[in-house]
Order: sequence, then structure tokens, then C-alpha cells
Amino acid sequence: MATIRLLTVEEADGIPEARAVLDDIRAVRQSSFINNFWLALANNPPLLARIWGDVKQIMTAPGALDPLTREMIYIAVSTANNCAYCVHSHTAAARAKGMSDAQHGELLAIIGLASQTNALANGMQIPVDAAFQA
Amino acid sequence: MATIRLLTVEEADGIPEARAVLDDIRAVRQSSFINNFWLALANNPPLLARIWGDVKQIMTAPGALDPLTREMIYIAVSTANNCAYCVHSHTAAARAKGMSDAQHGELLAIIGLASQTNALANGMQIPVDAAFQA
Amino acid sequence: MATIRLLTVEEADGIPEARAVLDDIRAVRQSSFINNFWLALANNPPLLARIWGDVKQIMTAPGALDPLTREMIYIAVSTANNCAYCVHSHTAAARAKGMSDAQHGELLAIIGLASQTNALANGMQIPVDAAFQA
Amino acid sequence: MATIRLLTVEEADGIPEARAVLDDIRAVRQSSFINNFWLALANNPPLLARIWGDVKQIMTAPGALDPLTREMIYIAVSTANNCAYCVHSHTAAARAKGMSDAQHGELLAIIGLASQTNALANGMQIPVDAAFQA
Amino acid sequence: MATIRLLTVEEADGIPEARAVLDDIRAVRQSSFINNFWLALANNPPLLARIWGDVKQIMTAPGALDPLTREMIYIAVSTANNCAYCVHSHTAAARAKGMSDAQHGELLAIIGLASQTNALANGMQIPVDAAFQA
Amino acid sequence: MATIRLLTVEEADGIPEARAVLDDIRAVRQSSFINNFWLALANNPPLLARIWGDVKQIMTAPGALDPLTREMIYIAVSTANNCAYCVHSHTAAARAKGMSDAQHGELLAIIGLASQTNALANGMQIPVDAAFQA
Repeated sequence: MATIRLLTVEEADGIPEARAVLDDIRAVRQSSFINNFWLALANNPPLLARIWGDVKQIMTAPGALDPLTREMIYIAVSTANNCAYCVHSHTAAARAKGMSDAQHGELLAIIGLASQTNALANGMQIPVDAAFQA
Repeated sequence: MATIRLLTVEEADGIPEARAVLDDIRAVRQSSFINNFWLALANNPPLLARIWGDVKQIMTAPGALDPLTREMIYIAVSTANNCAYCVHSHTAAARAKGMSDAQHGELLAIIGLASQTNALANGMQIPVDAAFQA
Repeated sequence: MATIRLLTVEEADGIPEARAVLDDIRAVRQSSFINNFWLALANNPPLLARIWGDVKQIMTAPGALDPLTREMIYIAVSTANNCAYCVHSHTAAARAKGMSDAQHGELLAIIGLASQTNALANGMQIPVDAAFQA
Repeated sequence: MATIRLLTVEEADGIPEARAVLDDIRAVRQSSFINNFWLALANNPPLLARIWGDVKQIMTAPGALDPLTREMIYIAVSTANNCAYCVHSHTAAARAKGMSDAQHGELLAIIGLASQTNALANGMQIPVDAAFQA
Repeated sequence: MATIRLLTVEEADGIPEARAVLDDIRAVRQSSFINNFWLALANNPPLLARIWGDVKQIMTAPGALDPLTREMIYIAVSTANNCAYCVHSHTAAARAKGMSDAQHGELLAIIGLASQTNALANGMQIPVDAAFQA
Repeated sequence: MATIRLLTVEEADGIPEARAVLDDIRAVRQSSFINNFWLALANNPPLLARIWGDVKQIMTAPGALDPLTREMIYIAVSTANNCAYCVHSHTAAARAKGMSDAQHGELLAIIGLASQTNALANGMQIPVDAAFQA
């Protein structure tokens, strides 16, 4: 169903440059599970290495935002961009990091509200207030 | 520049149903400033009342997410939907609620990363893993 | 400001293949005004001719939908796709075809509502009911 | 397959605040069928109540636009936002309200045309004519 | 699963105006295979004829861009617009026109990169440099 | 007008980690001009370094796609995502790499066509042919 062949875990692990990345994914996540996104990228080891490097740094390195907040922002973007795969995988990640039903419900409500006001502001073509451009 | 006439504050305050909403906006925000979005909606008082009611409840009522997290999620959606007005106004709101430069930088990095992986997942048409559908 | 040079009306009228299209636009609209979109396309007369031909047929030929309904659908798509130029020009067109303030207000409300439920359905990844696939 | 658990109709009806909303949906639609969107929202009764309240008012209250026109605008937005669930459910709703094959064909043609000119206007970055900003 | 009935090849060939278009598709592509997109459009022969005419001219007529480059641009747009059907069908078309795994990988990398910088530029609301507006 | 302060070139060059990246941009492009995107990112040197590293590798390293084709794909994505800044800057880059008026016209035509068929395929919810999923 993918437009590139999904490698099996065995095939991906058989490519040395891919294996190194997959092992790092397993180590960081403390899990042996490799989801389809990485098995698709394993067709192109340099791309796999670059994307995982970005994900690892941005989503897991110490910083000013806690891990769950990062996942909820990721879900918000993925929903607005309508990436079904990403909505599924990052909702699972957020739940694994402790997102409660109440937090999920509020996240969905904000995503819906923002989408509504985005459409209204665009439909009315509201000029940006000078106060916001200072 | 808007596709509907922006009312002046005086005009909007002269419409009783609009005045009541604008006064509530001033009270909740503890500020006399009314931004253009509301002055445009004031052409249609029932729509103004409904949207402000949603914003007030979802963005300011006590809940499971803190106010700054809610604003960052709003910015994320508005950026993905490319609503310039909304990005400006909610970035200002987030700063007013204490968003630091470091938090803003991380927010931008996550928005950029998610947009990239959204595009890759959609471009490869990755099927959702059974593990995410349980 | 455009990424291709906007021709002046005189320049565009000086290109025979473009002139024929511009004259048809003037005739169909019963107006001498040529808006920027056509002056940009006039750099490429075959593209100008094809796009105008589509617009003329789809938006003005007799059919099952009345002209104002067609313009409101056009505004809805342009808002969702966030094309500022298109929102402006088709809101002007809809007003010229009689769109009232009340109709505009309801149009905006539907666009906002649909954007909200679109986001909720995508965020929750709701499967399509069998009843809708019959 | 949803990212939140779809309740069964029995489960949803077992939640008093949800039951009241579902019964109103049944009454307004004069049908016992409850589609998945509402069964997903039933996990969060206040969100269910708010969204249904908006849909009921905007899509069914007397107003300046007839019910079928409202559904076609909804389909246009849902298509541009690429919400598969929403395209399916609102196409079904439009058919139930009498949309003919000819009307559906014209709706699709306008959605396609607008998407094309949206892309051309954005690709050429056409400045908005002064005439449209008056 | 479609919102309009997919005709069978036999049904579509039974409609004279549709048959003429389908035969031209077969001739241009030198293949007897008719994909679902055309079988859906065959419900509306004038729309079928217009869209195929556009595709034939833009994608296959001699021009300044080679056929594979055209398909890769098509995939890029379809991915950004998240049209699953279009990503699948045009990836197949690009492969049929010789797209190598290396070219596909670079195409995906550019689509991902552009999506990321699009989001960053929109999130920071960067003003266009005067140098780019000359 | 940006949501983060655009640094002046002097300010950006005064930050050692930013200076190193800006000097590499100047060297690779063989130009002293630094456009606003990089001056905005210079507020966050690690993000500046990462994004420039990606752009440099993906857009300029030897590969299977020539530099102009890469820029046209970038424009296509940026147009579909409606990033005005990106459309302007990458159209300028494509012109600097030799894009002719004819190539630009064909690029625009493909972007418009794809946007139209994307909308039609999504509006009709066409199922992917088995032949494309092999």
C-alpha cells in the first residue's frame, strides 16, 4: 500500500547503515518495536539517519518543553496537515508519555477551535493589528 | 483590506449585543484592547458571541492543560493552516503568558519537524501499524 | 510583488492571443475592468485562454446551480486553501451577484464550522460508517 | 482504527449527558441512525454537546441559505481540507437533501476549478487589486 | 467507497462521449488499463473530456520540461495537498517513466525539506525581502 | 512584521555560531546577500545550523536530480503549502539557476492541474487501484 516497498525488520537490519539507526531507535525508546515509518525510510539510509537524528534531538533532548507537550504539538500539526499515519503514531506516543483522556479531549478541542478561527480570519481577510507587529 | 468592513471600537460598542461580548473580552483579558478579529465579527453579533464563548471556555477555563501549552498548540495549528493573522495574534498571546525565546524556538522546531515527517509519511503513503490501531 | 511580471492592460492588449481573451472577459462581465490575475496570466496566452475558458464555462454557463451559489462555493474552497487573492476577488464577485450580509455571515459560519469538524474528524481518525459507503 | 475508542450506541446512550444530545440528533434528523463522528465525541460529553449545538444551529436553523446550499459549502470546505470522513458524511447528507447528479457534478467542477486558480494565484503571488480592497 | 458510483469499464465504454475519451487515454498511454479516476469522471462526460484534455496537453505535449520532471512536480503537489489517490497514481506514472530509487529518494527529501522550511517561514511570519520582489 | 525579531546582518554576524553558518551560506552561494529567513533563524543558532545543513545537502550536493529540477519541486511544494515567502525566494533561486519563462509557465500549469485533480480525487473519494498498490 506504500509507494515504496516497506522493508521487513530483517531486511532493514541487514543494511549496516540502517541497522545502526534502528538500534539507536531501540535504545532511545527502550523497545524492540520498529514502526513502519522507519522501515520505509530504511530504503534510503542517509535520509533515515537524518530524520531520526532530528526526531531524537527535537523530541527527546532536554529542553524548555516537557516531552508530553512536545507530542501534543506534534499531534496538532499532524492533524492540521492531515497526516493519518502521523496522527496515529504520535497519539500513541503521547499516550505512552501519559496523556490522559482529559488532556486528549482538550487538545482536540483546541485543534478544532483554532481550525475554526483560522478559517474565519482567512475568510474575512483580517489585517494584522499594529499592536501584534511591534 | 478585509472582505467585510472592520467596525471601529466605537461602532462595535454601539451595538448592544456586541457591546456585551466586547465588555466580557475586556474583563477576561483585563485589558481595554480589542483586536481586529473581534471588530470584524462584531458585524454579526451572534457569531461574535458564539466564537468568543468557545475561545473563553477552551482557552481560559480551568482544565488539564496550562494556558501557555494551550496557546502553543493554537500556534501550531495556525502555522500548519497558514493563518497569518492567527499566528501573529496567538504568538503575542503566548508571549503575554510567558513563552520564553527558548520555548518559542523549540515550538518552531517541532512544527518544522512535524511538517517534514508529515510530508514524508504522506509521500511514501505509509500504512498505519496494527500496533497503533489497537 | 508578483513572481512573474504583471503586464499593464496596454501590454496585454498588445498581444493578439491575449487580447482576444481579455475582450471576451470584458464582454462576458460587461465591464472594462481587468483584474490582476488575468494580467499575470497574459504572460502565457495559452494558459490564459484555458483558464478563462474553464472559468467562463463553469461559473457562467447555464446549469443546475445559480451563479451566487457557485461563487459562495468558490469562496469556501479559496478560504480553505487560504488563497488571499481568491478570497478577495470572489467575495467581490459574490457581492456583485447580490450576496447579502446575512448570506455572507452564514457562509462564514459554515466555513468555520466545517473547518472545526474536519479537524476533529481527522484528529480522532474516525472510520467512515458503512452506511456512507453504500 | 480511530485514535480514541468509538463507543457503541449502547455505551453512549448509557452516559446521561451524551444521551440527551444523541436523542436531540435523532429528533432533529428524524432518524435513529447515529454516525461514528458522534460516537467518538460521546467520550467527551461537553464537546459533543457544543459541536452538535453548532451543527444544529448553523446547518438547520432558518436562515438566508437553503439547507442544500449549506451542505454543498460544507462539502467544498471538507474536500479542500481533505477530510475523508467529512466528504463522505456530508455528500450523503447533501444527497438526502436532494442533491442531483448534475448539481454534484457542478459542485465538483467548481471545487476543482477553484483549487486550480488558488494554486495559480498563489504560485504567481498576485497582489490584490485595489478595487477589491475598497 | 467513492462518493459517486465508479462505473465499470464496460459501463463507461457504453457511453459514447466517454468512450471517445477513454479510447484516447488508451491510445496516448499505449495501454488498455483505465484507472479508477477516469471511471469516476465518466459519470460526467464533459468533465471527463475537459480534465483529460488538460492532463494530455500539460503532461504529454512537447514542452520545456521533460515528462519525468513533470511527474515529479505532480507528486510534490499531490503530497503537499495530501491526495492519497494522486500520490499513488503519479508515483506509478513516474516509475513507468523511469524514476530511479535515487531520484525518488531525492524527491522525497526535497518535499520533506520544503515542508519544513514552509512551516518555519510561516511560523516566523518572515517578510519577503525587497530583493525578491523586484 | 515577523513574529520573532529579524536580526540585522551585523547582529547576526556578531554571534559566533551564527557567523560560521552565514559565512558558509555566503561561500556556497558565492554572494554576500543574506535573506531574511536566515536572519530570523539566527536568533536560534542550532536551528539555523541544522536547517542550513539540510538545505545545503539536499539542494546543492551532487545527486540524481539537477539543481533547477530541485528548485522547481521546492516551488511546487511551497505553492501547495501557500508559503508566500518560500514561493518568492525559491522562484528567485530557480530564475538564478536558469529557469526560463517557458519552464516557469509549464511549472505553473502543472501545479494548477495537479491541484485541480487532487481536489477532484478527494471530492469523489476515489479508491486506489489495486494496480498502484502492487
